[in-house]
Amino acid sequence: MHKSRLAGFIIDCQSDDLDGAAKFWSQALGYSRKPMEDDIYVPLETGPEGLHIEVQKVDHPSRVHLDIETDDIEAEVARLEGLGASRVGKVKSWWVMAAPTGQLFCVVRVQGKGFEEKANQWE
Amino acid sequence: MHKSRLAGFIIDCQSDDLDGAAKFWSQALGYSRKPMEDDIYVPLETGPEGLHIEVQKVDHPSRVHLDIETDDIEAEVARLEGLGASRVGKVKSWWVMAAPTGQLFCVVRVQGKGFEEKANQWE
Repeated sequence: MHKSRLAGFIIDCQSDDLDGAAKFWSQALGYSRKPMEDDIYVPLETGPEGLHIEVQKVDHPSRVHLDIETDDIEAEVARLEGLGASRVGKVKSWWVMAAPTGQLFCVVRVQGKGFEEKANQWE
Repeated sequence: MHKSRLAGFIIDCQSDDLDGAAKFWSQALGYSRKPMEDDIYVPLETGPEGLHIEVQKVDHPSRVHLDIETDDIEAEVARLEGLGASRVGKVKSWWVMAAPTGQLFCVVRVQGKGFEEKANQWE
C-alpha cells in the first residue's frame, strides 16, 4: 500500500528574468514569495493547508504542470502507468511523466502538510 | 475595491474521448467525478475547501491553465494588465489572458466557497 495526492503545481516560465516572473505570479495570485532555495525556483506562500506552488525558470516553452506527491515514488509511477501514463525521465528524486492526454506532470516526494491524514491510499 | 484569488485550474485535453480523459485525471489525482453540466467539462470533487478543478475537452494542444476568480471581472482584468498581462479574448462571462511569461489563464466569476472571507482585496 502507498499513498498519493495532488501536491500542487509549478508555473514553468521560459524567461531569463525569474525575479520578474515570480513578481508577476505572486501579485496575480495574491501569494507572497517565500525565500528562494536556489536560482531556479521561487516558492509562493499559500498558507498551512495550501497547495505547493512554485515559479520555475525553464528552457522549454512556458506552461503549468501538476505535481503528485507520494510516499512511494516507484509504486505511484507504476500505478499511473497502469492508468495509461508513461515515464518521460527521472530528475533527481522525481519522475517526469506524460498523461495519456499529453500533459507532462511530476511524481515527487511528500511536500505538503497533512499528507498522512489526507492523501489517497492505494492498494 | 474588488477581490480575487486563485480559483483552481482546468486540465485542457485535446481528445475526442472526454470520458477517458476525465477517468484518467480523476484516478490519477484521487478525486471523484462530479456530474457533467454539458459535454465539454467534467468537474472533479475536491471537497468543500478544495480548488475548482475541471477536465475540459479542447481543440488546441493539451495543457493545464489557471483560473483566477473575482467579484469584478473588468477591475481584475485591468489589475492584471497593470502587472503586465494582456487580454486574449472574452468567452461568455470570462476573459482569457496571457501572462507576461506566456501562459494563458482565465479570469472568471466567483466559483468557490469562502471567497468573501478569503480572497485578496485590491484597492
